[in-house]
Amino acid sequence: MENRIYNFSAGPAVLPEEVLKEAREDLMALPGVGMSILEISHRSKTFDDIIAQTKADIKKLLNITDDYSILFLQFGASLQFSMVPMNIMPPKNLADYIVTGSWSKKAVKEAKRVGNVNIAATTEETTFNRIPKQDEIKLSGDASYVHFTSNNTIYGTQFKSEPDTGNVPLVCDASSDIFHKKIDVNKYGIIYAGAQKNMGPSGVTMVIFRNDLLERCSDDLPTMLNYKTHVEKDSMYNTPNTFGIYIIGLVAKWLLNMGGLDKMYETNKHKAKMLYECIDNSKGFYKGHAEKYSRSLMNITFNLPTEELEKKLITEALSAGFSGLKGHRSVGGLRASIYNAFPTRGVEDLVTFMNEFQTKNG
Amino acid sequence: MENRIYNFSAGPAVLPEEVLKEAREDLMALPGVGMSILEISHRSKTFDDIIAQTKADIKKLLNITDDYSILFLQFGASLQFSMVPMNIMPPKNLADYIVTGSWSKKAVKEAKRVGNVNIAATTEETTFNRIPKQDEIKLSGDASYVHFTSNNTIYGTQFKSEPDTGNVPLVCDASSDIFHKKIDVNKYGIIYAGAQKNMGPSGVTMVIFRNDLLERCSDDLPTMLNYKTHVEKDSMYNTPNTFGIYIIGLVAKWLLNMGGLDKMYETNKHKAKMLYECIDNSKGFYKGHAEKYSRSLMNITFNLPTEELEKKLITEALSAGFSGLKGHRSVGGLRASIYNAFPTRGVEDLVTFMNEFQTKNG
Repeated sequence: MENRIYNFSAGPAVLPEEVLKEAREDLMALPGVGMSILEISHRSKTFDDIIAQTKADIKKLLNITDDYSILFLQFGASLQFSMVPMNIMPPKNLADYIVTGSWSKKAVKEAKRVGNVNIAATTEETTFNRIPKQDEIKLSGDASYVHFTSNNTIYGTQFKSEPDTGNVPLVCDASSDIFHKKIDVNKYGIIYAGAQKNMGPSGVTMVIFRNDLLERCSDDLPTMLNYKTHVEKDSMYNTPNTFGIYIIGLVAKWLLNMGGLDKMYETNKHKAKMLYECIDNSKGFYKGHAEKYSRSLMNITFNLPTEELEKKLITEALSAGFSGLKGHRSVGGLRASIYNAFPTRGVEDLVTFMNEFQTKNG
Repeated sequence: MENRIYNFSAGPAVLPEEVLKEAREDLMALPGVGMSILEISHRSKTFDDIIAQTKADIKKLLNITDDYSILFLQFGASLQFSMVPMNIMPPKNLADYIVTGSWSKKAVKEAKRVGNVNIAATTEETTFNRIPKQDEIKLSGDASYVHFTSNNTIYGTQFKSEPDTGNVPLVCDASSDIFHKKIDVNKYGIIYAGAQKNMGPSGVTMVIFRNDLLERCSDDLPTMLNYKTHVEKDSMYNTPNTFGIYIIGLVAKWLLNMGGLDKMYETNKHKAKMLYECIDNSKGFYKGHAEKYSRSLMNITFNLPTEELEKKLITEALSAGFSGLKGHRSVGGLRASIYNAFPTRGVEDLVTFMNEFQTKNG
């Protein structure tokens, strides 16, 4: 483990040790290149090969067809909150948003600067402890697109399947669960995801963009904020985050080597099940925040009987080598983020620790 | 050298070996932290310390006062081409641009989407082979700001001192010569620079922003495109490029350890002088693109008598371990980019190589 601890951070988050080792091995000089990945030109043959292989591996992982472009942008999902409406809200100037947490709300705020927003559903009334059911979602019918957040890191909820939007393009912020299972990309107009939770380091935003939507992108937009720029220039209009893309490439290769996303999904269900069973078998000592049908496989949120016990657990856990368990300030309690790269062994050890903690303090 | 070659790339570009070694050393786990820099939360104490130290060292390097904020943004200088006018062109809706190359022209293109642009000077007529002199610069007098590009990577020209703009805020794209010498930051309203030439890896844009200009930034702007957001949240409104900032921090520390920017300037002048002397003493075999008074210390651009000889030199140089000497397609010929981190020894070796090449082919 090289003095590594269990990192339950919500993001930036744990990366596969194999990926870190390979990056370290080649950090001074890529084999046969004589330069660090940090130093090579984005216009070089070496980097061309890296970005092409990364895209090919992502296409394979998610069965992405040529109807879509894979883009590597920057400035976070937060910039996508603006780019999506700026590019594809016209000409109807109306979009439907399903609000399931703080990130959805921020997306709505930015969309409202561009046009009209219909809140098709929200679960804010119950502190976002659940995903709205299909019959609760009131679509406007003539919207330019429907936006949702597939997984909500802060509240620990997750859509089990995509909302049905008919022919209206579906736009998804998948920052915190991209690659956790195979999804049918053909159901989507745009999928965007900050890399720093399940794909790589911070500083890259992957966008999977259905090419027919390009016709909506106005040439009047600032060049960097126009998806057309990045599709036409293959993410190389200006210098991309070369190192970030390289790491995403290593993660994609690791996922393929691990058996692909169906295999990863099995592992993710197994890891989450262990923690949820620990919570459900605790006779109320541990109390999950999310309603059962909305539970996230990525972020497990729960409370203890008192804030004092929560603080005590966090402190003792840190001493025992479990880092990052403090819940987000807006919901409190605890949160264990167990993305793809989080080792099963770490979940087993946390469950043991939590059971012992309950025995001592329950 | 660990099989490293001499990297004359214009950017992403060479980094100090000491920086790469430290980054490699700690890549699996930062000492005492147990997580890689690629994995730590941007809200952690560890990262707080990293960004604070990085800012403190940059302040020290450039004597930056508290009148300015240091921001670490993303999406390149190319996004700043839009952010600058969106934020500070109103209410006058007029800005002066000094055009000295392709990057200035791109900045103009984006500014025109926002308001009116006065081209205060341009040297396009002579393929941007020089910097306009002060008496050639026709300022409009009532502009919101004056924009210039301090160093032009493609053409190999550089401002030796800032244009005089009176009380009108000066905005500078310093992507390719930031940190090459000490400048008087107090002369500027905004300095922005992509990190990937003289500061770190690609994926971070540093912005030095004079705080009194914040009053111009409208609350109607998209949140991520408003400088106010990033000043108020200290570059942490959303997840910054944590790894990129960490490397910039290591580079800043390296610069201080090397003796600071006055020392670096001496070294840069020495390195450039060797190459320009080689060109000037070649009896016309090597011909510099830039007029002498406009010569860049960062990018040395030159031609050979024929394109065939240029190709031959590039090929033979690559075999001899000198990479990245091909000039930009828009000006042709050769270009040696010798940023801060480029070793003096590499310049000496290139001069020897060029002299030998001339003897054989001249």
